[in-house]
Amino acid sequence: MTTRTETDSLGTIEIPEDRLWGPQTERARRLFAIGTERFPPALIRAVGQQKWASAEANRRLGELPVLLADPIKQAAEEIISGVRDADFPLSVWQTGSGTQTNMNANEVISNRANQILGHKLGARDPVHPNDHVNRGQSSNDSFPTVMHLAAAQAVEGRLKPALATLADSLAARASQWASVVKVGRTHLMDAVPVTLGGEFATWERQVRLGLERLDACMPRLLLLPQGGTAAGTGLNRHKEFDRVFCEVVATRTGLAFAPNPDKSEGMAAHDALLELHGALNVIAASLTKVANDVRLLGSGPRSGLAELMIPEDGLSSSIMPGKTNPTQSEALTMVCAQVMGNQVAVTVGAAHGHLELNTYKPLIIQAVLQSITLLADASESFARHMVDQLEPNLPRIAENLAKSLMLATALNPHVGYDKAVKVAKLALHEDLTLREAAIRLGVTSGAEFDAWVRPETMIRPA
Amino acid sequence: MTTRTETDSLGTIEIPEDRLWGPQTERARRLFAIGTERFPPALIRAVGQQKWASAEANRRLGELPVLLADPIKQAAEEIISGVRDADFPLSVWQTGSGTQTNMNANEVISNRANQILGHKLGARDPVHPNDHVNRGQSSNDSFPTVMHLAAAQAVEGRLKPALATLADSLAARASQWASVVKVGRTHLMDAVPVTLGGEFATWERQVRLGLERLDACMPRLLLLPQGGTAAGTGLNRHKEFDRVFCEVVATRTGLAFAPNPDKSEGMAAHDALLELHGALNVIAASLTKVANDVRLLGSGPRSGLAELMIPEDGLSSSIMPGKTNPTQSEALTMVCAQVMGNQVAVTVGAAHGHLELNTYKPLIIQAVLQSITLLADASESFARHMVDQLEPNLPRIAENLAKSLMLATALNPHVGYDKAVKVAKLALHEDLTLREAAIRLGVTSGAEFDAWVRPETMIRPA
Amino acid sequence: MTTRTETDSLGTIEIPEDRLWGPQTERARRLFAIGTERFPPALIRAVGQQKWASAEANRRLGELPVLLADPIKQAAEEIISGVRDADFPLSVWQTGSGTQTNMNANEVISNRANQILGHKLGARDPVHPNDHVNRGQSSNDSFPTVMHLAAAQAVEGRLKPALATLADSLAARASQWASVVKVGRTHLMDAVPVTLGGEFATWERQVRLGLERLDACMPRLLLLPQGGTAAGTGLNRHKEFDRVFCEVVATRTGLAFAPNPDKSEGMAAHDALLELHGALNVIAASLTKVANDVRLLGSGPRSGLAELMIPEDGLSSSIMPGKTNPTQSEALTMVCAQVMGNQVAVTVGAAHGHLELNTYKPLIIQAVLQSITLLADASESFARHMVDQLEPNLPRIAENLAKSLMLATALNPHVGYDKAVKVAKLALHEDLTLREAAIRLGVTSGAEFDAWVRPETMIRPA
Amino acid sequence: MTTRTETDSLGTIEIPEDRLWGPQTERARRLFAIGTERFPPALIRAVGQQKWASAEANRRLGELPVLLADPIKQAAEEIISGVRDADFPLSVWQTGSGTQTNMNANEVISNRANQILGHKLGARDPVHPNDHVNRGQSSNDSFPTVMHLAAAQAVEGRLKPALATLADSLAARASQWASVVKVGRTHLMDAVPVTLGGEFATWERQVRLGLERLDACMPRLLLLPQGGTAAGTGLNRHKEFDRVFCEVVATRTGLAFAPNPDKSEGMAAHDALLELHGALNVIAASLTKVANDVRLLGSGPRSGLAELMIPEDGLSSSIMPGKTNPTQSEALTMVCAQVMGNQVAVTVGAAHGHLELNTYKPLIIQAVLQSITLLADASESFARHMVDQLEPNLPRIAENLAKSLMLATALNPHVGYDKAVKVAKLALHEDLTLREAAIRLGVTSGAEFDAWVRPETMIRPA
Repeated sequence: MTTRTETDSLGTIEIPEDRLWGPQTERARRLFAIGTERFPPALIRAVGQQKWASAEANRRLGELPVLLADPIKQAAEEIISGVRDADFPLSVWQTGSGTQTNMNANEVISNRANQILGHKLGARDPVHPNDHVNRGQSSNDSFPTVMHLAAAQAVEGRLKPALATLADSLAARASQWASVVKVGRTHLMDAVPVTLGGEFATWERQVRLGLERLDACMPRLLLLPQGGTAAGTGLNRHKEFDRVFCEVVATRTGLAFAPNPDKSEGMAAHDALLELHGALNVIAASLTKVANDVRLLGSGPRSGLAELMIPEDGLSSSIMPGKTNPTQSEALTMVCAQVMGNQVAVTVGAAHGHLELNTYKPLIIQAVLQSITLLADASESFARHMVDQLEPNLPRIAENLAKSLMLATALNPHVGYDKAVKVAKLALHEDLTLREAAIRLGVTSGAEFDAWVRPETMIRPA
Repeated sequence: MTTRTETDSLGTIEIPEDRLWGPQTERARRLFAIGTERFPPALIRAVGQQKWASAEANRRLGELPVLLADPIKQAAEEIISGVRDADFPLSVWQTGSGTQTNMNANEVISNRANQILGHKLGARDPVHPNDHVNRGQSSNDSFPTVMHLAAAQAVEGRLKPALATLADSLAARASQWASVVKVGRTHLMDAVPVTLGGEFATWERQVRLGLERLDACMPRLLLLPQGGTAAGTGLNRHKEFDRVFCEVVATRTGLAFAPNPDKSEGMAAHDALLELHGALNVIAASLTKVANDVRLLGSGPRSGLAELMIPEDGLSSSIMPGKTNPTQSEALTMVCAQVMGNQVAVTVGAAHGHLELNTYKPLIIQAVLQSITLLADASESFARHMVDQLEPNLPRIAENLAKSLMLATALNPHVGYDKAVKVAKLALHEDLTLREAAIRLGVTSGAEFDAWVRPETMIRPA
Repeated sequence: MTTRTETDSLGTIEIPEDRLWGPQTERARRLFAIGTERFPPALIRAVGQQKWASAEANRRLGELPVLLADPIKQAAEEIISGVRDADFPLSVWQTGSGTQTNMNANEVISNRANQILGHKLGARDPVHPNDHVNRGQSSNDSFPTVMHLAAAQAVEGRLKPALATLADSLAARASQWASVVKVGRTHLMDAVPVTLGGEFATWERQVRLGLERLDACMPRLLLLPQGGTAAGTGLNRHKEFDRVFCEVVATRTGLAFAPNPDKSEGMAAHDALLELHGALNVIAASLTKVANDVRLLGSGPRSGLAELMIPEDGLSSSIMPGKTNPTQSEALTMVCAQVMGNQVAVTVGAAHGHLELNTYKPLIIQAVLQSITLLADASESFARHMVDQLEPNLPRIAENLAKSLMLATALNPHVGYDKAVKVAKLALHEDLTLREAAIRLGVTSGAEFDAWVRPETMIRPA
Repeated sequence: MTTRTETDSLGTIEIPEDRLWGPQTERARRLFAIGTERFPPALIRAVGQQKWASAEANRRLGELPVLLADPIKQAAEEIISGVRDADFPLSVWQTGSGTQTNMNANEVISNRANQILGHKLGARDPVHPNDHVNRGQSSNDSFPTVMHLAAAQAVEGRLKPALATLADSLAARASQWASVVKVGRTHLMDAVPVTLGGEFATWERQVRLGLERLDACMPRLLLLPQGGTAAGTGLNRHKEFDRVFCEVVATRTGLAFAPNPDKSEGMAAHDALLELHGALNVIAASLTKVANDVRLLGSGPRSGLAELMIPEDGLSSSIMPGKTNPTQSEALTMVCAQVMGNQVAVTVGAAHGHLELNTYKPLIIQAVLQSITLLADASESFARHMVDQLEPNLPRIAENLAKSLMLATALNPHVGYDKAVKVAKLALHEDLTLREAAIRLGVTSGAEFDAWVRPETMIRPA
């Protein structure tokens, strides 16, 4: 590998010749040989946006001449576009402030900007990584700004559409099977009748409420600490930098980003991201419920509840021939378990900052973005490959309903709870129908029973 | 112990003579000898409210004659007032639907109502526990309604005032010490100056945002599943029962409770309570940060950071004489750790309901109410016994500030980042002041240094 | 309330006249009005044991005259016996070192010892709380010693017997139903046959392995930090105190307690208790599986898997007459969810000590003891009220087995996997028996099918 | 992309021409477009080992002719060597049994074996993926066997050496600085003296105990479920297959793998892996403590505790010139937070299997292997880049010690606790030395004070 030699305050260091990064990145690359996790494209794109918007804001405020601002913005655009991903080699497990990734961006952009201006890599002139690319900024405020940019866009651009897709799939089934009356189950035991469509409608509602929960977090997620510079003070930045920066990113992203009125709050703590992950955690719980219920109703095909027929997706057991499994439920519930785990990781990280800086930033944003991606991908997969492919097993549904003992609940208003108990128990112990039991006990006549116990009327208030 | 004999569908059972509960409660008492945890008064009070409002709603709708409704309401009032607490003997660790606690209430109220009407305990007549007290209800909808009633009132009546108290205490200090300039710390290392008041202001903001987060949950927490009866259907209740019930409780509590448009969602899942606990979890993270920061700044008295003097609360070491410890920080961070644990308990419980019913209800509400109480009590304690008693160690603060190397940051705009690095490093390695180092390196004159490096101007943008 | 006035270094304070505690306890009682949680008797008993053993060890080593040691030991015995529980009024949420509970014990014992010797409460003479009761000790080493004493005895005396009870109950069923061949289920879908007894045997094995896991923790749980005094140094104690103390408690408890070779490790961290809770967490996961499986197999009674008949425990729905629910499974899974939550609480607490002292001690031991009690109580309850009462639904089991498509797996060695797939799929899609499908496809003759596909031979290797 | 057409029971499917996988893998690739997570090399290598050992065991038992066994083993060796990694394209988030990855291996190996034998890809003959490569196996037993193989080897080969490296680094410092007496700190407040070496020794001990904890898990981790085939029965495998398989892998790996006596236990549950992760969780807590303590002692350089000088690693702030941060502590504590999160993910997954199969297998092993890798890498990084580079700040240490008030503890045995309190408090409030205060109060003479209060004797029992 050919290298070029660069110098920084610690001395010289060799950098791969064709790479745009500089000495700070190179040192970090060597000092953090930890794990294989790298920030996802969504984070690197937000890094580019933050640098682009900073250069633009500084230019507007007269802090950066156009001559330097333009190539800086051009280089930042390349990062946004994804073509510079290979120049971001650092592990997630670096300094807890994300400083190395911020410096990585500063170095890549200054090198690329100087290259555009006809200078060679490592020149640090005319564009300097700290004095110009990082102008009016610190990692302390820039990296958490990047975290908010990435998270908010991932929620709006990725997770909300995916959840909407799933909700729509569920809604279609809710409507389609609204009149399929079936046995309800509480405590996993036979209960009064419900409709199959109603079960899908409730799952849909859980997903739609997940969307509401995401929206409820946005007021705090859209507040950016940019402008806090070092330790939240705003030292060395233009007085209007925070305001103009937010206008620039709001325009560019279409999201109503605004300056955090207490910059330090957004740097020393990450409560807003923990709040967001709390909503992701609720969504994970909701989806666990949906996926589990589908596999329960789909259990069988012959010796389970078997009220739904899960799709033959072509995957099977390696030993049991022709076996079809609820593979999408399993993928989804695994994803949700990881999100529940990430919730604890983010909580531990968010709680344990010290004074002016939380130093669990890379952990937090990595977990948040992973949870978002997993929930989004798995929701779409579940919608397309499971919900859209389900079929009701109508004969089984009818058979189960007919023999249910909990239809006895309809007798309560007519004969009182205590007598209804006797009917249900006799039917169970003597293997009778409810009707037979009611008549044998003299609790109802046959005609009364037929008038009072009608499953299709039991699914709503009289 | 003298007993009376009662009979239910399983046979006879002996009940302590003077107790108002009935056979279902007595059986449950024997079947669940698990742990020492009992529901807190806040839950039992909400049980009383739910029964009171049900009787009132049924009366208004003509479902319950005044003759029965009145003693039922009177008995429910006694539960609300707390005088019947001893008649709720059941473990939290019972059926996952809370059915036993609902039946406990039905039995206590019917017995008490019959007693009021001149009948003896166990008569089940004229007031019947299921047919009248539980009229138009199921445990399936009543107990989760109780959960929402208890949680919402605990948030509004207990946690929010306590957090406001803490925020106010922090705000008073923020204002009082707004002009105390001191060393900031990022990565726990000396950084550019901040103000002591600013640190308190940031903590205050975290607490105030906690209040916003609680408010953000309320739209879903105020939706009640009452009216879902069995399995969410609404079977056996008056068509208008849900609406009237919510009007009654809203009037009585002053909170805008409303019917959940999908009753089943509020019975089969408890996403709203998990969402609420997610907010409690954020608050726990915020308070952990505040409590930790205070003990860091108060560490010493001689060999720590020692910028704050923590109160001599009269508690000391059993062996080290005269030692003062940040006891309130410790109590608060312990409480927060328990809340973080409860977050997982609630998540596991909320995610794993089956079909028409979540059966982790007692676990969930117990954890939610414990977290609320702990956060509220500990916040008030921390406000009164720690925040209000702190004093700044002004000489130490001044001494620390004077020797800080990170004042060099103010040189950046004048001499560039790279030269400022040289100054700071020389000062560190040769044990010089920054000013001495800057002059020795020829980076600034003495006069320039004095003009550029002024801590009191470094705490905000120029 | 009549009070007596006592004086300590902070000044005078009023103490309820008849209470044995002193000024440090009284101050703490006022300073920590947080929550309702109090240490359980198991912890208070261990406090008594620690003080009893310290006095005995100091006496043996000549550090404490018999004249003082004897009344101290007598007072400690009273604490062990439980009669002094009302003199331990403090909240769990106190100082993180447990100092207040240690001082509570020092004060109660010195007061009681002085009382025995004919002096009045508050005299601090001839027995002094710090100089004599706490002699050679600090809260720093005494409280964590108490934690280990309480946890180890709760494991040995409470949890292990309870788990053994459950394992024995499961083993009895495993043996009883060893030859009941039934449909197995993987992915919750019909699979090759297993035996009902085998299912219970696997659950039993999970519980037995839980016992192994507890034993695997004991080598570190039995190491006591007593003797570390302040900050782990051993300052102010007799050189042999740690050794003699451990001999005394080992003799008294019958458990092989020994001195921690690095006292500081047992004071600055609580890895041994976190390790123990990790084992409790595994047990919680195991029991969740058992409880869930039982409720799955017991689901029905008519429209579920219905292979087990769960006991009619006399508890029922408040609205659905005659409904029987798996109430013990629900109590057990709720308990397990709380243990999973406590795992996080203990993890957060155990990880975040500072330098010479972990200050999350009360939180940690409270959670550990709660988890132990809940798992023990719920295991016994589940054994007695669920496992011992279950009955197999033999007709349903036979019916399910007969129609299972996964018997086709037995064809693999004879016809190859790909042909067996065709047989199973045809049977499913055409609603045939496997035998019919195999013959129709010409894959086997009827005689071959009968010879190869025999469920009773499929439950083990040929 | 050129493709070849293959056929399976669902129909035809196009597969990239040069890829060794088959239709089951291809379908899975399309059905699980979820996340970017792929199994790490350690898992894929274990897949190869499992297939290699199965072929060898089947050959020895006469279940597989040498003609087929040899190319199968050759293909498995290629997987073990890593050259076939690109043929394992599947997401972690697939079926919860890991069936798709097992089938991926079956298909790659059968294709490669047929290729070796001169047949073309997709031939399924003479080597068939199910009948030969998967012979006597199911995904149900093979994949969990792979999980144990991968986890046990990662513990032994990766984590234990890394922890030993860290322990050795700490031990070197413990020895080097054994006689550096310094202020101890409890509650983060000045306490009696300790030694700097002692602090490192305690950290070392925590790490060494982590090794013991890993060893304590091995008895259960080394038990393999291979041989359970479908649903734990052993159907379709040679009676001796489990025994021979374990002999083969034990020989090959050098680890004492043995057959799980209850195969179903190792398939239906993953308690052994949860137990292992519990140990990882303890290690994470231990390392959090170590990393935090180092950054506390290294805080400064001028306004912190500043008793350790953290290494100038060349990384700095992007705005504060010359700032050195405890970057390795931050990376390590972030890693530990992720492990704490993974603990919950594994717990949720391990607890929620159903009947004969746990279907959270990919989640569980992914989290276990990630935690192992992160802890191993970060421990080595922390040892090399932090522990090995630390230097004590001896002047600061001496200065802190000299002024410590807690030296008063040495007065207790001579003057009693109550008088020692007075001395310490006077010194604090009047800003005196302890000696001055003791003399002024007449508690000691100067000579007595000098004889009794000697820090170098306070670090151990007299």
